[in-house]
Amino acid sequence: MSKALPKRSEDYSLWYNELVKRADLAENSAVRGCMVIKPYGFSIWEKMQQQLDKMFKDTGHSNAYFPLFIPKSFLSKEASHVDGFAKECAVVTHYRLKADESGKGVVVDPDAALEEELIVRPTSETVIWSTYKNWIQSYRDLPLLVNQWANVVRWEMRTRLFLRTSEFLWQEGHTAHETKAEAVEETVRMLHVYAEFAEKFMALPVIKGVKSENEKFAGAEQTYCIEAMMQDGKALQAGTSHFLGQNFAKAFDVKFATRDGGLEYVWGTSWGVSTRLVGALIMAHSDDNGLVLPPKLAPIQVVIVPIFKGEQELEAISVKAQEIKDALSQKNISVKFDNRDTYKPGWKFAEYELKGVPLRIAIGPRDLQNNSVELARRDTLTKEVINLNEVDIVTHITALLDEIQENIFAKALAFRNEKTTTADTWEEFVETLDKKAGFVAAHWDGTPETEERIKEKTKATIRCIPLDREPEEGTCIFSNRPSKGRVLFARAY
Amino acid sequence: MSKALPKRSEDYSLWYNELVKRADLAENSAVRGCMVIKPYGFSIWEKMQQQLDKMFKDTGHSNAYFPLFIPKSFLSKEASHVDGFAKECAVVTHYRLKADESGKGVVVDPDAALEEELIVRPTSETVIWSTYKNWIQSYRDLPLLVNQWANVVRWEMRTRLFLRTSEFLWQEGHTAHETKAEAVEETVRMLHVYAEFAEKFMALPVIKGVKSENEKFAGAEQTYCIEAMMQDGKALQAGTSHFLGQNFAKAFDVKFATRDGGLEYVWGTSWGVSTRLVGALIMAHSDDNGLVLPPKLAPIQVVIVPIFKGEQELEAISVKAQEIKDALSQKNISVKFDNRDTYKPGWKFAEYELKGVPLRIAIGPRDLQNNSVELARRDTLTKEVINLNEVDIVTHITALLDEIQENIFAKALAFRNEKTTTADTWEEFVETLDKKAGFVAAHWDGTPETEERIKEKTKATIRCIPLDREPEEGTCIFSNRPSKGRVLFARAY
Repeated sequence: MSKALPKRSEDYSLWYNELVKRADLAENSAVRGCMVIKPYGFSIWEKMQQQLDKMFKDTGHSNAYFPLFIPKSFLSKEASHVDGFAKECAVVTHYRLKADESGKGVVVDPDAALEEELIVRPTSETVIWSTYKNWIQSYRDLPLLVNQWANVVRWEMRTRLFLRTSEFLWQEGHTAHETKAEAVEETVRMLHVYAEFAEKFMALPVIKGVKSENEKFAGAEQTYCIEAMMQDGKALQAGTSHFLGQNFAKAFDVKFATRDGGLEYVWGTSWGVSTRLVGALIMAHSDDNGLVLPPKLAPIQVVIVPIFKGEQELEAISVKAQEIKDALSQKNISVKFDNRDTYKPGWKFAEYELKGVPLRIAIGPRDLQNNSVELARRDTLTKEVINLNEVDIVTHITALLDEIQENIFAKALAFRNEKTTTADTWEEFVETLDKKAGFVAAHWDGTPETEERIKEKTKATIRCIPLDREPEEGTCIFSNRPSKGRVLFARAY
Repeated sequence: MSKALPKRSEDYSLWYNELVKRADLAENSAVRGCMVIKPYGFSIWEKMQQQLDKMFKDTGHSNAYFPLFIPKSFLSKEASHVDGFAKECAVVTHYRLKADESGKGVVVDPDAALEEELIVRPTSETVIWSTYKNWIQSYRDLPLLVNQWANVVRWEMRTRLFLRTSEFLWQEGHTAHETKAEAVEETVRMLHVYAEFAEKFMALPVIKGVKSENEKFAGAEQTYCIEAMMQDGKALQAGTSHFLGQNFAKAFDVKFATRDGGLEYVWGTSWGVSTRLVGALIMAHSDDNGLVLPPKLAPIQVVIVPIFKGEQELEAISVKAQEIKDALSQKNISVKFDNRDTYKPGWKFAEYELKGVPLRIAIGPRDLQNNSVELARRDTLTKEVINLNEVDIVTHITALLDEIQENIFAKALAFRNEKTTTADTWEEFVETLDKKAGFVAAHWDGTPETEERIKEKTKATIRCIPLDREPEEGTCIFSNRPSKGRVLFARAY
């Protein structure tokens, strides 16, 4: 709290890093690329988990748990999968340490080498499909709708708290189906679940789309995604849902007896979101004063700060504060009453602004006389005095929390719309990326080569082919070859 | 469902393994020593997690997340800690694979060796205390009450589903305190939380006690534990809570400015329970027909099975079944209505017995005429016909679930009491262990040497020194040296 945060307009990246640290969300650990998620940051992830878990169960999925380790040979079974993950994985080669001969520590015991090395899972398709082989014999065993909450490791060279870390937490759904149509339907269903979660809970507008060949998941036939826009005009992939075709079924020989007596490979999907969403939440809404949290994911929705001199005033205010707290808690609104006398009200105001608490109630001696409180909104930084004789505080705050949730979404949506530009020529395209950033909707000839060249020249990638795009004849901004519709380009996290 | 379970009396170990597999709880994975927790088994663990998490939060703890990997050098910082864990840990030595030169797979890339090897956490004291060093400066930062839900790896040579696996899921609490008294109080508080959870939710009576020097946690000053009795007369350690003294604070140089201006090492505790509890739950209560689950942890508390011929009968029964299901669901009782026509009622009865569903409601055409249902209890295997004109089904079932919960506990308690024997001579001691098994309360001279000799000769270990033991002068059953009280011996899992 000693000095102000860096400003977004001056150094967005520094602003983000400092905010994550000062708001007690996470920090780098002693292990390269791995983060420590601090209690306040973890409580946001817990709120996300609870909601997502409910949505997964409401759509028929059950949780299970599969091993952390994957035998090296499993990775190689699906050709593009191993290409995608081999270069960035943590490899376990030994299962024992022994005392150093100098007696000053421990060394790896060379006699304890594993026969086959184990990979710390970067994702679990291989170990799960090797298991599904035993679970699936007949169409009666399908669909299999399983989700796992787990940690995964991808050895990243450049890491960033929440957005890209060597270890991260996520959920991975892995489903198996009788028909292609059913698997595609599941893939799209989970994309919609993610989009609903992003928009209704994170207050984060997202574009639903399909990835290009270059950007799809290693091992998928098609990758669906939701893409969000950050305040610096860079895009962020917030969730992916993969139609796996029969790729992993073939790799692990998972067949089922069909209804008409045949034998066929199973159709698969997988889908995941991760602690990266916490980074997206921060980057999308927060300001130069600190976090701005949508009420539905805020660990503390309302904080009550007493303004007092001496114990007697505090006691009198506490009675009123406790009354309000109890009334709000009964409606499942999470309230903190910060009655510490070791910090001044001004310090507390700044602290809860930094922590993104959506509503702050201040109560001073004059408020007691007038039966009023002062209410401050984090999203707009506006204040109002509420006369409790006239206004029912619970009704008022319930409505305000909804209003804040909607306002944060509306603001992010307006920003994204403002940051979405149509470009028809290469010059427009490059200029928009450089001067305005954001999404650029442009024609593309559909080839991986063109996409690659555009990326080399501009660092922009195709974020997605939007599901709701209008068919439109045009010419590729790069190759001038014909195109049947626009895709969304952006520089991205 | 094809053939009966092995009998407990004939082969307890086989009975357990078969039950775990047939009830769809877990199975061995392709990775040595690691299990797959299947959806039904995982849903029991989820119920345990939810309840424990609530109890941890009610006692002031917050969740956080620390890295999976521990730098090798960290382990060595606490001398007895490294002794305890170095011999059974998974070691990451490389961070990349590359294509095999034969082109037929992948090999570890020798150019991607880590400068310092990383250990997959067997427990997180070292990485957490290295972090606490940055979080704790002053007494104002204390107490620090943190819990983590995580996976850990201990390279076990002999594994057993749930009871002992190389990877397991657990929670580990890690707290930091200003004074020794406060840390001891926390250690004991969490022991009581575990005991309450075991007895009230798992219906598992436990002995609260302290471990001997030989059995305490590597790095602790004192280890408290809860010990349970399984149906084969072997003991099972169900949870531990460690008073760490200042050991880890000293190893990682974690000091705080005291209230009177001094500088002192922080006092610590850690405590954990794991998926092993699922194994304990199964072993303690289940019978030759399958699982017996206490209602408070049963994923399905009530199952409704229709007895019907043809669609018309099923439809008529479904109306009544749905009515009962809705009424029970409203009271937060989890109900499944199994209306599948692909399985016969008899098959379903056996299936839900195997799965340990506490109550089964059967409804046939005659029940519709009489407005009755047949109710079967899993714990006692008794049945009764309920006339719905006379009995309110919701009230009746709510009371029955409580009664079942209590009955399962009472049965386990009676069994444990019956299996607890006092022995005063070496002959009695050995004979009891061999012929009756269970806990043997005997005098011990208090030395690690004697404990070690007794273990060598009988395979029995000191499970704990009970917290509520009566002081009693006596002589050690092995050495005949003086003893001040009895301790509990048993062969154990």
